[in-house]
Amino acid sequence: MTNIKILEKPKLKNPLLLVGLPGVGNIGRVAVGYLISELKSKKFASLYSEWFFPFVMLHDKSTIKLLKNDFHYYKARKAGERDIIFLTGDCQSLSPNGHYEVIEQILDFVEKFGVKDIITVGGLATGELESNEKVLGCVTDDSVMKAYAKHGIEFTAGEKVGYIVGAAGLMLGIGYERGMKGLCMLGQTSGFPIVTDPKAAERILDTLVKIIKLKVDKSKLEKKVDEMEEFIKKVEGLQMKAVSELAKSAKSQASGEELRYIG
Amino acid sequence: MTNIKILEKPKLKNPLLLVGLPGVGNIGRVAVGYLISELKSKKFASLYSEWFFPFVMLHDKSTIKLLKNDFHYYKARKAGERDIIFLTGDCQSLSPNGHYEVIEQILDFVEKFGVKDIITVGGLATGELESNEKVLGCVTDDSVMKAYAKHGIEFTAGEKVGYIVGAAGLMLGIGYERGMKGLCMLGQTSGFPIVTDPKAAERILDTLVKIIKLKVDKSKLEKKVDEMEEFIKKVEGLQMKAVSELAKSAKSQASGEELRYIG
Amino acid sequence: MTNIKILEKPKLKNPLLLVGLPGVGNIGRVAVGYLISELKSKKFASLYSEWFFPFVMLHDKSTIKLLKNDFHYYKARKAGERDIIFLTGDCQSLSPNGHYEVIEQILDFVEKFGVKDIITVGGLATGELESNEKVLGCVTDDSVMKAYAKHGIEFTAGEKVGYIVGAAGLMLGIGYERGMKGLCMLGQTSGFPIVTDPKAAERILDTLVKIIKLKVDKSKLEKKVDEMEEFIKKVEGLQMKAVSELAKSAKSQASGEELRYIG
Amino acid sequence: MTNIKILEKPKLKNPLLLVGLPGVGNIGRVAVGYLISELKSKKFASLYSEWFFPFVMLHDKSTIKLLKNDFHYYKARKAGERDIIFLTGDCQSLSPNGHYEVIEQILDFVEKFGVKDIITVGGLATGELESNEKVLGCVTDDSVMKAYAKHGIEFTAGEKVGYIVGAAGLMLGIGYERGMKGLCMLGQTSGFPIVTDPKAAERILDTLVKIIKLKVDKSKLEKKVDEMEEFIKKVEGLQMKAVSELAKSAKSQASGEELRYIG
Repeated sequence: MTNIKILEKPKLKNPLLLVGLPGVGNIGRVAVGYLISELKSKKFASLYSEWFFPFVMLHDKSTIKLLKNDFHYYKARKAGERDIIFLTGDCQSLSPNGHYEVIEQILDFVEKFGVKDIITVGGLATGELESNEKVLGCVTDDSVMKAYAKHGIEFTAGEKVGYIVGAAGLMLGIGYERGMKGLCMLGQTSGFPIVTDPKAAERILDTLVKIIKLKVDKSKLEKKVDEMEEFIKKVEGLQMKAVSELAKSAKSQASGEELRYIG
Repeated sequence: MTNIKILEKPKLKNPLLLVGLPGVGNIGRVAVGYLISELKSKKFASLYSEWFFPFVMLHDKSTIKLLKNDFHYYKARKAGERDIIFLTGDCQSLSPNGHYEVIEQILDFVEKFGVKDIITVGGLATGELESNEKVLGCVTDDSVMKAYAKHGIEFTAGEKVGYIVGAAGLMLGIGYERGMKGLCMLGQTSGFPIVTDPKAAERILDTLVKIIKLKVDKSKLEKKVDEMEEFIKKVEGLQMKAVSELAKSAKSQASGEELRYIG
Repeated sequence: MTNIKILEKPKLKNPLLLVGLPGVGNIGRVAVGYLISELKSKKFASLYSEWFFPFVMLHDKSTIKLLKNDFHYYKARKAGERDIIFLTGDCQSLSPNGHYEVIEQILDFVEKFGVKDIITVGGLATGELESNEKVLGCVTDDSVMKAYAKHGIEFTAGEKVGYIVGAAGLMLGIGYERGMKGLCMLGQTSGFPIVTDPKAAERILDTLVKIIKLKVDKSKLEKKVDEMEEFIKKVEGLQMKAVSELAKSAKSQASGEELRYIG
Repeated sequence: MTNIKILEKPKLKNPLLLVGLPGVGNIGRVAVGYLISELKSKKFASLYSEWFFPFVMLHDKSTIKLLKNDFHYYKARKAGERDIIFLTGDCQSLSPNGHYEVIEQILDFVEKFGVKDIITVGGLATGELESNEKVLGCVTDDSVMKAYAKHGIEFTAGEKVGYIVGAAGLMLGIGYERGMKGLCMLGQTSGFPIVTDPKAAERILDTLVKIIKLKVDKSKLEKKVDEMEEFIKKVEGLQMKAVSELAKSAKSQASGEELRYIG
């Protein structure tokens, strides 16, 4: 019950999968989202899933939008560039096993386009006011570490945190089982899960642009972040509200009423 | 494990799917339920699901009733009218992924009867004592907004709330992925989730009647609401009690006892 | 992932399914369990399920036992008697959808032996110190009420409680969808979910014996209840402990530790 | 969605399945892990599952590792020895039904190699400061008790605790349904679930070595325990943190905010 609606079947040559889903600081979501729009990438598929929250968003004119993950592609235009599949979206899975199920479906899908390399972007909440500006990295194997070493990524995430929760890490862990190699880039951010950190996203963007050898005009980043911020906040806020709603109603009922429970 | 029991296979011509399930203010449940009874619509299928609460209701004479959603149909009798499939029922899904699974099954089923348009009815709890009398609307796309603009619906739900939880929204979001178009009508109500609001239901009914071009005698509405109210309250109350029951028993056990947990 | 292991395929003629699973007062479990042992019924199948708690019980000599539901049969020996399939067991499902899944499997299984009638036994916790001695009943339809009216069952459960949680009710609700008819007998008990009430079980036994027209020596009931009590308490206690265990460990970790959650 | 990646298909003769997964005192994980390394056993398959926590671990050089269970084998080298399949790993299932599903998959897999005997190792947290040094045992049937009686195992677990939660017990319970016989060895440990108890592990190791008639140098045990300890703590700590994280965010949102919940 994870459905991928295909709008177009592009022919891609050894494409890189570049993943930026909502998470700590929304760093991946913002950085990859900005790249998609600046590179005028084309949407070719959308995924929705029973493992997402059971609500719809209302856009500008009261238009109903299912929660989705979207696939865009960019075809290399010059020597040195490469084809890219971008994966971004409104949310990650709600339940633990949902994470695994959705990621397996995503990898099934992109495998058909020949994906062998993945870069995911996530955030690391340091809990400190002054955020470290270094981009941290972790990898599926040593060969990837060597390949990306020149771009100033610090491969010290293992010491600093020890694990990655959600799609940014799982996508690489499961991908590696299928013979895909990958890098997870983590922007460090001081803050709480709900705050979007545009500066951390910009630092990721700088590194990403070097890796994929593309020129990207960053002047509209701040404006874009403001636009996205509102939408991302809405989704996150509602997810938490829906969870708490359930807890509250159960609690208020639990007291005072005579129980006549049958079994 | 969502089963639809078919009692009859009516031949319908381009039927509208009209959905009123329990929710905030029970506005959809009441308005659509009243239409079904006034139009002497015929039940042709029932759905039960593992995603509903695991209990049965006891009706008047201690008769056991499984929690269900029911399908009724109305065949157009005059020029200007259209065939309608009504979906109403005792409850919505209990778990998040259940919502998606049940709705996919419902859409699979009604698709066979040629459904291409959906209207769902829900409620918006404003939290204010004086309730706004306007019927709010949201849509799958602009064409629907134009089609229903003349009926006095305010398409400002996007500004007021930003999302719709549960079947009223998801049915349209998933339906749109299958090429169905639709409108969600939201009655505004002041109150808490458990209170049925007959006035909000009446306002929805007035608008619905204009849209489907039918004459409906509203004089029995209040009486019907009283009848439904008791049953709806029972279901809701029990759902909450069942959740709290589990939480309570776990809590009372958690203290005082020596733990000898093996793994 | 609900498995039924078949030990024997008895040939049965129009058998009654008689269900007594653990629940309020353990009335069904005790009454049906006693009948099985007094009638020297033979076990012919066992069911275990992923929807039961993930632990095993240790019996007398440190022997490991999976949580199970068991099927026994009794073949009519005299005129007036009828064949019976008994369903009893250690537990009911842990999750809401598990209830539906396990019951569908049970009905699939007994349907092959020609079951068209079901009697389930449950308990009603009144919360009052002096327990009402009447056996309450609820039914799938009026024809059943008439059939069992002469046995002193009060069909007032609908007024007193309004719903039945778990297998005792769902088995009948889902069975009715498959064309099976049935009665749910509820023994009234004052107490808390964990206490076994042998007197309520005895009252049920008296009524059951009349219905199935069998002679049963009740003199060993008290002793049997004591034996069962210990085992039933163990299962129940552990189920609650397992739930609370999880809650506790989460809570103790939640405080004090610096959070560096990545996404 | 439980995947077993096979690296090699060894030919084994009547192999014993020896299981040591994380649990109370991590006794099984440590004892079996040490045996694997001392016997230079070879890894031939890995299992990952949607029922494990949705995160990846970061090893030394920031290398991403999916949570896994691993299968190693040892081929008998001398008369008196027997072939062994070792099952160990990072974690057990997160959800109750996941336990059943993963264990069924494991048994499906090892059945192909001819497994008919299982030994699982677990821990019993006594809650007392001075830990009992006896190794406790429980079995699938009496024949196993006789077979292992000479090794000083006390078959009194049934009196002391009454149940086993998780894989150590379920593997035997479900295995027995498939015709496999088995022993569960429980090391007694004073402590809390998160603390690794190397002494209890050593006591288990002593008994295991006798049973499988192998010579094992125990001098590196302490060092190995220290190495494992760090990793095991990381996994456990994160599992609890992930659960509490969810609870916390729900709670902090639940207060103060105006609720405008639609349905």
